[in-house]
Amino acid sequence: MQHTLYPPSRLGDHPWRIVETGFNAVDYSLNATLFALGNGYIGLRGTFDEGLLGAESDAGCYLNGVYYAEPIRYGEKAYGYARHNQRIAAAALPHELTLALDGQRVDLRCGEILEHRRELRMDEGLLYRRLRWRAPNGPVLVLESRRLVSLTERHLIATEYHFSLESGIADIELASSLNAVPGVMTDSDDPRVGAGIHKEDLVSRYSHASEETLALSHHLLSSGFTLSSAAAHHFDGAPVQFIRHASEPFRATSHYRFALTDQTSVTLTKYALFDHSRGEPVALDNRLKECRRHRFADYARAQTRQMQQFWQTADIEIDGAPRLQQGLRFNLFHLFQSLGRTPDTNIAAKGLTGHGYDGHYFWDSEIYILPFFLYTQPQLARNLLLYRHRILDSARARARELAIPKGALYPWRTIGGEECSAYYPAGTAQFHINADIAYAVRQYHEATGDDEFLRDIGAEIVFETARLWPAIGHFNPHRDGQFCINEVTGPDEYTALVNNNFFTNAMAQRHLHYAATVFDWLQNHFPEQARTLYRKLSLKPAEVAQWQHAADAMFLPFDATQGIHLQDDSFLDKPRWDFEHTPAEHYPLLLHYHPLTIYRHQVCKQADTVLALFLLGEQFSTEQKRRDFDFYEPLTTHDSTLSACAHSIIANEIGYTDKASAYFEQVARMDLDNHHRNTQHGIHTACMGGTWLCMVQGFAGMRQRHPQGLSFRPRLPSGLSGYRFQIQVRGQQLSVRVDERQVQYRLVSGDNLRLRHEGDSVSLTRDQPEASFPLATTATPSPHGAAR
Amino acid sequence: MQHTLYPPSRLGDHPWRIVETGFNAVDYSLNATLFALGNGYIGLRGTFDEGLLGAESDAGCYLNGVYYAEPIRYGEKAYGYARHNQRIAAAALPHELTLALDGQRVDLRCGEILEHRRELRMDEGLLYRRLRWRAPNGPVLVLESRRLVSLTERHLIATEYHFSLESGIADIELASSLNAVPGVMTDSDDPRVGAGIHKEDLVSRYSHASEETLALSHHLLSSGFTLSSAAAHHFDGAPVQFIRHASEPFRATSHYRFALTDQTSVTLTKYALFDHSRGEPVALDNRLKECRRHRFADYARAQTRQMQQFWQTADIEIDGAPRLQQGLRFNLFHLFQSLGRTPDTNIAAKGLTGHGYDGHYFWDSEIYILPFFLYTQPQLARNLLLYRHRILDSARARARELAIPKGALYPWRTIGGEECSAYYPAGTAQFHINADIAYAVRQYHEATGDDEFLRDIGAEIVFETARLWPAIGHFNPHRDGQFCINEVTGPDEYTALVNNNFFTNAMAQRHLHYAATVFDWLQNHFPEQARTLYRKLSLKPAEVAQWQHAADAMFLPFDATQGIHLQDDSFLDKPRWDFEHTPAEHYPLLLHYHPLTIYRHQVCKQADTVLALFLLGEQFSTEQKRRDFDFYEPLTTHDSTLSACAHSIIANEIGYTDKASAYFEQVARMDLDNHHRNTQHGIHTACMGGTWLCMVQGFAGMRQRHPQGLSFRPRLPSGLSGYRFQIQVRGQQLSVRVDERQVQYRLVSGDNLRLRHEGDSVSLTRDQPEASFPLATTATPSPHGAAR
Repeated sequence: MQHTLYPPSRLGDHPWRIVETGFNAVDYSLNATLFALGNGYIGLRGTFDEGLLGAESDAGCYLNGVYYAEPIRYGEKAYGYARHNQRIAAAALPHELTLALDGQRVDLRCGEILEHRRELRMDEGLLYRRLRWRAPNGPVLVLESRRLVSLTERHLIATEYHFSLESGIADIELASSLNAVPGVMTDSDDPRVGAGIHKEDLVSRYSHASEETLALSHHLLSSGFTLSSAAAHHFDGAPVQFIRHASEPFRATSHYRFALTDQTSVTLTKYALFDHSRGEPVALDNRLKECRRHRFADYARAQTRQMQQFWQTADIEIDGAPRLQQGLRFNLFHLFQSLGRTPDTNIAAKGLTGHGYDGHYFWDSEIYILPFFLYTQPQLARNLLLYRHRILDSARARARELAIPKGALYPWRTIGGEECSAYYPAGTAQFHINADIAYAVRQYHEATGDDEFLRDIGAEIVFETARLWPAIGHFNPHRDGQFCINEVTGPDEYTALVNNNFFTNAMAQRHLHYAATVFDWLQNHFPEQARTLYRKLSLKPAEVAQWQHAADAMFLPFDATQGIHLQDDSFLDKPRWDFEHTPAEHYPLLLHYHPLTIYRHQVCKQADTVLALFLLGEQFSTEQKRRDFDFYEPLTTHDSTLSACAHSIIANEIGYTDKASAYFEQVARMDLDNHHRNTQHGIHTACMGGTWLCMVQGFAGMRQRHPQGLSFRPRLPSGLSGYRFQIQVRGQQLSVRVDERQVQYRLVSGDNLRLRHEGDSVSLTRDQPEASFPLATTATPSPHGAAR
Repeated sequence: MQHTLYPPSRLGDHPWRIVETGFNAVDYSLNATLFALGNGYIGLRGTFDEGLLGAESDAGCYLNGVYYAEPIRYGEKAYGYARHNQRIAAAALPHELTLALDGQRVDLRCGEILEHRRELRMDEGLLYRRLRWRAPNGPVLVLESRRLVSLTERHLIATEYHFSLESGIADIELASSLNAVPGVMTDSDDPRVGAGIHKEDLVSRYSHASEETLALSHHLLSSGFTLSSAAAHHFDGAPVQFIRHASEPFRATSHYRFALTDQTSVTLTKYALFDHSRGEPVALDNRLKECRRHRFADYARAQTRQMQQFWQTADIEIDGAPRLQQGLRFNLFHLFQSLGRTPDTNIAAKGLTGHGYDGHYFWDSEIYILPFFLYTQPQLARNLLLYRHRILDSARARARELAIPKGALYPWRTIGGEECSAYYPAGTAQFHINADIAYAVRQYHEATGDDEFLRDIGAEIVFETARLWPAIGHFNPHRDGQFCINEVTGPDEYTALVNNNFFTNAMAQRHLHYAATVFDWLQNHFPEQARTLYRKLSLKPAEVAQWQHAADAMFLPFDATQGIHLQDDSFLDKPRWDFEHTPAEHYPLLLHYHPLTIYRHQVCKQADTVLALFLLGEQFSTEQKRRDFDFYEPLTTHDSTLSACAHSIIANEIGYTDKASAYFEQVARMDLDNHHRNTQHGIHTACMGGTWLCMVQGFAGMRQRHPQGLSFRPRLPSGLSGYRFQIQVRGQQLSVRVDERQVQYRLVSGDNLRLRHEGDSVSLTRDQPEASFPLATTATPSPHGAAR
């Protein structure tokens, strides 16, 4: 289902840069997402500093973890529905810079664009821009700018502007603002679009402007957050005259004027600081002073250093496919920009690049995104799980609302910890989120060996989440006492409220087994902490035995006739969706068919059973995976961006190399090519995480499983001549290089690393850090041809 | 689940009267419902004319078929969701009469109530009131009033007030209004409560007051309705002085003053007229003049005549149970008051007595209420079906939204014809409504022999609704090609979005067979009309053959082990609800548990399979019914008022006489005793219709089925010594009398009526109009004891 709207050359194929040349208003929203910058705390959409007439609502600046909390209105309410929607809050726009050239407003919809170019430099972490613009019958202004959202000073956005003229003389008027004026509510039928900015909720706390600085603060009544921002201006070059300042609620502005000739220029550095609190505004004056001691170039250098450190361990180099290389780096770059760095924050489905999905955190974090960080920067992965621990009390309270007598139920979507899903059949009913989080705890512990984490943080999460399953499942006398879990929704949201969703049951089984294992592990290794925790949770061996029993007796739906796993009890009883008569413009189906129409049919929005085959891969034979893939793949629309990566990985496992590559190409350039036509609302961070999964767990076949340990089965995607990446495992750094002939493993740091290559044991040591093997190949023709 | 809040004597046990004595503020809302008056067009809640401090929102006046149409807000929208909620509109309150006695506001919360009595006289159709009230340290005012909502002049509400003093002298000030000032929005978590009055939607068109008349009009922006009202005052007795008039938007008032002694009195007659239009206000002046030519007594006499005509054919007399007699008459009386008399209107779930369920029409009309009218006043029943024909185009449009390529899908809840259900799993998913309406068409035709109706109205409804089933069902290769219908919700809303709901499939089967029969019937009897209709609908024999095929192959879920019908495919796979540990105050479950918690369990809100056993009773053996009843009844909470009557009827059939009587007692006094604790929001018209079903189809065992014809199996409920009723069949009037010894049938009018008594054929003619039989008895002990 490839919906490429843009020719391949639109953003270039530079391996480190996303390049926009010229200006096309149609792309403005999309590019505002693609050129967004962030540092895990602040996210700033890539709109023009001078704005664009009629496109004001495309601008956005967000603070991770800060949200409105407006009551959810239901047409018809029922007990236990989520009460409030936590929507990511709009911070002041820090870059607004209205310009007039001899009284003519500088706007790319007017005048003549002689040259326009933006470059997102992923190796530097900066957005560059160059504009040559002629006012109607006027001189040519050259505006060059560099923007960064600092990776070293998390509160800072810095921009440097250079103004010059190509000929003649001109008066420039410049109004620089901090702008938090509430925008217009959006009202879309597309459930994937967030609800936009909410006016009534805002109270201005202060607004100051002076010759050199701006300061603004506003309070969100609904959630109690107070957002504060401050900005300073530093001019170099030709003389600049301060004209006046203006402060109104939600906007502070300083006005300047200067004259330019073709011999003079002016450079402006604008520093903008952001912070938030739960009460009084945060004073930013001193920090602003501190920032101003540094020049833009200082921050730019520090930024580049940070990016280099990131790429050193995180990069995946591929040979022979520059556009895939560009897409791959773009995806990893945005993950790094989006990830919250504190236990109060996580990573939103759209990162900090738009208000799509209202800025909510989903299971995407644990299942799609965590592995990338876990194997490249485990300390950042740890934070994702600390966040889950922080919101455990909210998850406990939520469980009580759902009549689950003990334990916790994590919210399907949230920022602050409370369930925000206003449509429970595709929200709260996705109980699998509990298993997903426990899966991530296990994965983290296996990759890092961080026993303290498991002891102090992970174990409590694992136990409390495990308690869900006995509460909502039961030993079904009508199925020989097997443990059944009814009325759930799996990852595939084109089927809802089913019994015995295969993914859910299989993940719950793994979860319960693991919880019992951790119970023993904690008791054996940390008896004192175990006592304390078990007392706190009133956790007794009898309950753990019940977990084991449920796990052992877990019902996994299977159709013996076709030899396939069933997505749920009734999947085979439904007629197949009439794909043949569904026009292309009716995709994604959710925007063109009522849920009842969709749910009634065999049709999948995304990988469900196929995803389980990946996550729990050691439980299933290759032949089984092939049968399941052959059955489900033709029924899957991939209307979710979470789907393609799981399909690529399993396609790899079963030797469908053509499909593996085709799916990977979609994943790698999902946002750059706007495959789902909604990147204007924000990037797709889960899919970006899927990029890394496709490469490392798909093509390189990396797995880390207990007790087998680390293993690889590298393959070369069609069209590529080689690839290289590094992973960190338990503090040791491993480099993996694959080319057309061989696979090379090298221990970059560490003493001793054991792994398996194609099933054979390999030991790397400080003395013998390298091992090479010929590249294996397996390919099986897939029955349905290349991926759609 | 009996929740009797009031001692039995609260409203007396008069067979024709509902009597309130004294005043208890706690009962005010409830009694406002019970003492409501209506004529099928206007409904007026039984609040006090002088109001009650703090209870202003209990007042309500409604016009059938007139509604607001506000957009439904969803926390998360999806394609095809109902767009607007049509909420029954508030008309001007016609009876507001602020009184002051020597400057003291007359209000039952102040002063001293020496006597207070209200009587709803069901034989007269009038509400009587007598109040003796002493102002703080003042004289005793005696206020007597009679109110009627005219059954002969559908636009009129008339009230007569008589003011006198027991002693002393006093000045009375009286302000009489028409009041449409919007009230406060209610915001309840109870989905059964409507949303109340919506301010922003209202525009005042005019407001006039003069010495003798008031006039008011307001427009509903959202729906385009304009409501107009006018009132006139006529005084008799002591001199009355007009003081002033006041008109403001939404309220027009005239102020009067008079002096009373213990020798004088004043009588006021207030006439209030109501009408509505889609455009300009309706002029009411001339009609008001016409009304004023008649005295209150004239209208009261006409009203009583109408009621006598009604009771002559509609009454059911029972011997030996005055409270049941009272409840039974109360229910039939309110049905008569609530039923719309034009094809633009139907009968709301709450009648015209409150804004519960937003005043919507449901399947209640066809399945629970229609039979009463059909067998007592078939011309009124006909209107219910004309309404469905009128909204057929809306139902067609709705089908398209649900991707049903042809035919119609009736809205689950509506006033104007468009789907208003904001929660589709217990709304739109109840596709069975199509079959219910077709069932009613068949029932109507069988009872009346009205061929013209079937030809011109019924057939089109039956065909268009039948087209739903092939669109949403399929011949399931995994069930030997049986016809399965997935993703539906049956009548029991504690189970949603299931596959092969027994009720739905069985009703669809009946529907499809009937549609095929009607196709042939029309072609044979009215070939010309058949050609026209089939051309209009593009209906070909091949499609009808497909209906037959689907009906023949219909899958009806059955468990051979237990010998029971399954409510749906997965019902047995769910664990039983833990009734033993559910506290009494946690009922109704829907107010205390999340839908996911409820749906996961074997628990029924109401009759589902049991209802099918009644509606399609000839398909099932008594033994089968007993097995099904024994299985489902203990799982049923009867949290819906629709449940008990079906249980009473089937209990009768299977000889559980104790249960049949116990359920009937609940049904008969559901609202009078406020069993469900929500009658304050309006009566339960379906349950009221169920009263008639319990008596005539339950105890008397009346059925009319093709080709068997009319049949009876009368039984005497425990505690009763006899009962009598009449029914009309194909224009002939039959009286049925049952006492402890015998059953007597008598042809009251008509030439020849054939019926079956206990399976034996009986023929009544003009010459031999009577036949008597000894009363048969069958009783089987039920396994669960008396009904809860």
